[in-house]
Amino acid sequence: MEHQVIVWQNNERKVLTADKGQNLLEVLYQNDTLLDTPCGGQGHCGKCKVKVLSTLFPVSSKEEELLSEKEVENGFRLACLTTITADMEVKVEDDVELDILTEGINQEIDLDSEIKKVIFEIEEPNLDDQRDFLTRVQEKTNTKRITLKALQQLDQVDKRGSLTAVINTARQEVVGIKTGKNNQLYGIAADIGTTTVVLYLIDLNTGAEVDTYSFNNPQKIFGADVISRVNYTLGSQRKVEELQEVLIREFNDGILSLADKNEIETDDLLTVIFVGNTIMLHTLIGLSAESIAKAPYTPIFTEEIELKPNQLGVNINSTGLIKLLPSISGYIGSDIVGDMLAVNFNSFVDSWNLIIDIGTNGEMVLANQDNIYTCATAAGPAFEGAKITFGVAGISGAIAEYKIIEQGKIEYQTINNQPAKGICGSGLLDIVAELLTAGFLNNKGAFYKDEELEPWQQERMTEYRGFRSYIVLTADEAGIEEDILVTQKDIREVQLAKGAIAAGIEVLLKKANIDYEILDNLYLAGGFGNYLDPHSACVINLLPEEVEEKIIQIGNGAGVGAKMYLMDQRIASYVDQLREQVDYIELSSSSDFQKEFMNLMEF
Amino acid sequence: MEHQVIVWQNNERKVLTADKGQNLLEVLYQNDTLLDTPCGGQGHCGKCKVKVLSTLFPVSSKEEELLSEKEVENGFRLACLTTITADMEVKVEDDVELDILTEGINQEIDLDSEIKKVIFEIEEPNLDDQRDFLTRVQEKTNTKRITLKALQQLDQVDKRGSLTAVINTARQEVVGIKTGKNNQLYGIAADIGTTTVVLYLIDLNTGAEVDTYSFNNPQKIFGADVISRVNYTLGSQRKVEELQEVLIREFNDGILSLADKNEIETDDLLTVIFVGNTIMLHTLIGLSAESIAKAPYTPIFTEEIELKPNQLGVNINSTGLIKLLPSISGYIGSDIVGDMLAVNFNSFVDSWNLIIDIGTNGEMVLANQDNIYTCATAAGPAFEGAKITFGVAGISGAIAEYKIIEQGKIEYQTINNQPAKGICGSGLLDIVAELLTAGFLNNKGAFYKDEELEPWQQERMTEYRGFRSYIVLTADEAGIEEDILVTQKDIREVQLAKGAIAAGIEVLLKKANIDYEILDNLYLAGGFGNYLDPHSACVINLLPEEVEEKIIQIGNGAGVGAKMYLMDQRIASYVDQLREQVDYIELSSSSDFQKEFMNLMEF
Repeated sequence: MEHQVIVWQNNERKVLTADKGQNLLEVLYQNDTLLDTPCGGQGHCGKCKVKVLSTLFPVSSKEEELLSEKEVENGFRLACLTTITADMEVKVEDDVELDILTEGINQEIDLDSEIKKVIFEIEEPNLDDQRDFLTRVQEKTNTKRITLKALQQLDQVDKRGSLTAVINTARQEVVGIKTGKNNQLYGIAADIGTTTVVLYLIDLNTGAEVDTYSFNNPQKIFGADVISRVNYTLGSQRKVEELQEVLIREFNDGILSLADKNEIETDDLLTVIFVGNTIMLHTLIGLSAESIAKAPYTPIFTEEIELKPNQLGVNINSTGLIKLLPSISGYIGSDIVGDMLAVNFNSFVDSWNLIIDIGTNGEMVLANQDNIYTCATAAGPAFEGAKITFGVAGISGAIAEYKIIEQGKIEYQTINNQPAKGICGSGLLDIVAELLTAGFLNNKGAFYKDEELEPWQQERMTEYRGFRSYIVLTADEAGIEEDILVTQKDIREVQLAKGAIAAGIEVLLKKANIDYEILDNLYLAGGFGNYLDPHSACVINLLPEEVEEKIIQIGNGAGVGAKMYLMDQRIASYVDQLREQVDYIELSSSSDFQKEFMNLMEF
Repeated sequence: MEHQVIVWQNNERKVLTADKGQNLLEVLYQNDTLLDTPCGGQGHCGKCKVKVLSTLFPVSSKEEELLSEKEVENGFRLACLTTITADMEVKVEDDVELDILTEGINQEIDLDSEIKKVIFEIEEPNLDDQRDFLTRVQEKTNTKRITLKALQQLDQVDKRGSLTAVINTARQEVVGIKTGKNNQLYGIAADIGTTTVVLYLIDLNTGAEVDTYSFNNPQKIFGADVISRVNYTLGSQRKVEELQEVLIREFNDGILSLADKNEIETDDLLTVIFVGNTIMLHTLIGLSAESIAKAPYTPIFTEEIELKPNQLGVNINSTGLIKLLPSISGYIGSDIVGDMLAVNFNSFVDSWNLIIDIGTNGEMVLANQDNIYTCATAAGPAFEGAKITFGVAGISGAIAEYKIIEQGKIEYQTINNQPAKGICGSGLLDIVAELLTAGFLNNKGAFYKDEELEPWQQERMTEYRGFRSYIVLTADEAGIEEDILVTQKDIREVQLAKGAIAAGIEVLLKKANIDYEILDNLYLAGGFGNYLDPHSACVINLLPEEVEEKIIQIGNGAGVGAKMYLMDQRIASYVDQLREQVDYIELSSSSDFQKEFMNLMEF
């Protein structure tokens, strides 16, 4: 039996049809209404809220756990826990715009792309020069091979006029031949983040970054973090392909949009370099990432993989080239290799440098001219806004900066200056730092009791779902419906995250046998690293205070690395060399790490 | 309106349906009843005879020209000139079995195929050794790359047991991975002749030639010779593909048959090497060969072309390898390169060697240790049985040997000892040689007048369709229905053919500045070269008598070359070297050749 589901989003009304007994989240997904589902619809995260406008049905015990009393009263339910048994009408969260970091540190890049175009004419054969046409083409294009497709094109073109050949210079191979002159040559550097994807459109004739395009990784419907996604696919190649397909589909939309907007033919898009963590790269090419998710965390591949566009279904010129930038290990993906490219290793002579990329995992690289040590810690998603009561990603309205001036006077900044919707990573960091500075928290991370606080402090404290909590913004202060809080549990999440990262740094330093003081530069990569306040990071002891002045925020280093790999084919052998040199330290079996972690959870 | 066409062949009755106005040859072709059509159904050759059993229709003037009076009377018509206007019943020539040369000279071949299999186990990863699975595979297989397909297979296989990898050793690339142990490894050397195709099934683990399979080139329905086929395709890529498709279809049948008969999985067939003249190779991969057919005879390619099986639709393991053996020039194809491989160039120290491959064209190579000269002459199809009044290909019943003992007593031999059906190349050569020796012909190639002949000789002379003719076999002698003759016109065709070849040899010798006496070996390649009587060839001055003792018949040299290329990948660089060394002489613009040709048409 079929039911009607009326869905309101962004002030628009959609009428969907569902079978009796279908799951609401599934129906919404099938109809391209994508909710935030960090847990992948498993009923753990409580994020896929819908407001029921039709007859309200009873709340489940799971929902009572995950929603506030007020929410339940106001008709909120969780889509993943709702079975459709009658016609219904719901309102879902409006689409939110993620503020996606596309900028990265500027690196001088030499221009020498693997795919090039050559415009030439074929010398006409005669009885004194009967050499075959291919030999003539190879002479003009400095190549030794040809693909069948290009050979068939050579057969068909008018050989008396100008021709344009597409050349793979590394293979010295002609991959395409067309009539006429067309030197347009573009490439895409694609940073496939777990949360967000950024495409950089590069003019490979000039090296100019023509435009960027970014979108939320559509795989998020299968889980916010990589492990949820791997769990979703377990044992089903079909589900692995589902992850692949949603990603490629949006990627192709991005390519079309970039081409349209910049008046470029997709046929002149000839190379794509993908960068991302290993799980993203595995799912991108249709591999299960199961072996990465469990000990001993072994990927299927880490090296550069070369593909043809039609092998992935990527809509660029079919004779073009797709490459996956190499990774180091299961948890040091090509995004971190990208970070390594983005900072200039040549400047590491006689200096020690630390690169940290903080997301759900914290990856770090400690290097001087001779040594490269690297490790990854499971920081947890606190700084990504997940598992934090009022946590949000870097969306419009996220509290990104926060200051307690005096006597409870508050200053704060939201992304795009929109009404406050929640707390993102950099905001959370500021809040915790301020709570420490203003004497709300002891160094073990516990809120002081009311009797230990001053009256103005007591006013900002409350209890929320059983946890002692700090009122970040009252509904009045923020002009919103509900207070925004940080609970004792949230503080614990921050402690776990920062403890893991700080402990990882300690292990690397110990491995290199150096102290913090010796560090010359500390590069922070990625969105959180870019937006965080270095001072706050040092106050909460995420980073030691000694390095505050040495912090350099490099932005989207992964994207910068992908662009470098795209523009200059010689980077590949440089990456090979880095990969040879890297010493990866597995923290899960390190007793040093366990010890440091326990210590460094304190502030 | 539809008509019924009843067709008798091989004592079987087929009932076909045709539209009014359709061409009979076309209807037969569409129903897989393939007639001999050297001219490609253009109404020039008179070979596509059918005997009309239903009401006889009037004969056209074209048919009167091409058929004998007796044939017309007996109800023979040409299918290509017959339009279907009513129900009809016809009898067509029974399928004839071509005696296809598959044997070639024995060459010692080292075994080192490009595609190999490796059986191995993956070392299980642990926290002290987290290297990715691909790295482990590469270590065991001595490779550096992997295809996407193989990587996906690696993802799927059970990594704890034995695995079998298929390796492209030249690219150091894993192209396939499967669970279990399977070292079966086979390849096909395929000689694509204009007339016949031979497949050699080779065990690449042992080098053994397991079996052969041969068939008539099905492209013959579009014309017997390459030029007719090119003319058929002119201006139509669809027709080029038609040529390709019929060939690939029969090729795949051959593969299936070889696999079935020898109990081999087609998945264990991993390499195919194709050898053939340039026009065969062009049509094989879907290229028009138009530019080869007209001056300045420029092919699209001559170098080695590498393909994936699915690019050609060849039904071997899809991860396998297809290669086209390189050619020299438009008319010195890879078949001749195969001949060059089949003779041992290393033995050419201080010796001059001539290789001749006679078909519709005569290709020849003159070489010593330092120089390789080559040329091709348009010998015409006389020695292939075409354009000769009673000419046939090397079919069962073809007169292949012929001797005039004395006073008109005749000794002859037909292929497979079947009743005489016509004269094939080697028979024709014998007949002309005998006619010269027995004093029927003067050295200008004219039959003596009756008054110049002895009575027994006069008895064997007659007139046939306006030409003075020699009765090769009377119907009585042969126990057949009609006398078999050689006409004055046939003698002229032989003179054109042998004059062209002899002149080509002269030009090469002049280029090398040597005499016949200096020649150490004369290698005859190909079917005609294999079956001809060297003495007869010298009598008619096709070859100078000085070399009679130096003739070595090497059989299907092209096939031998393909097998070598298949079995030992190092042959490729040797071929590159030969190709660098070769000096190709274009005869069409050579005044020397024209002069020699005029002289050497004489006997």
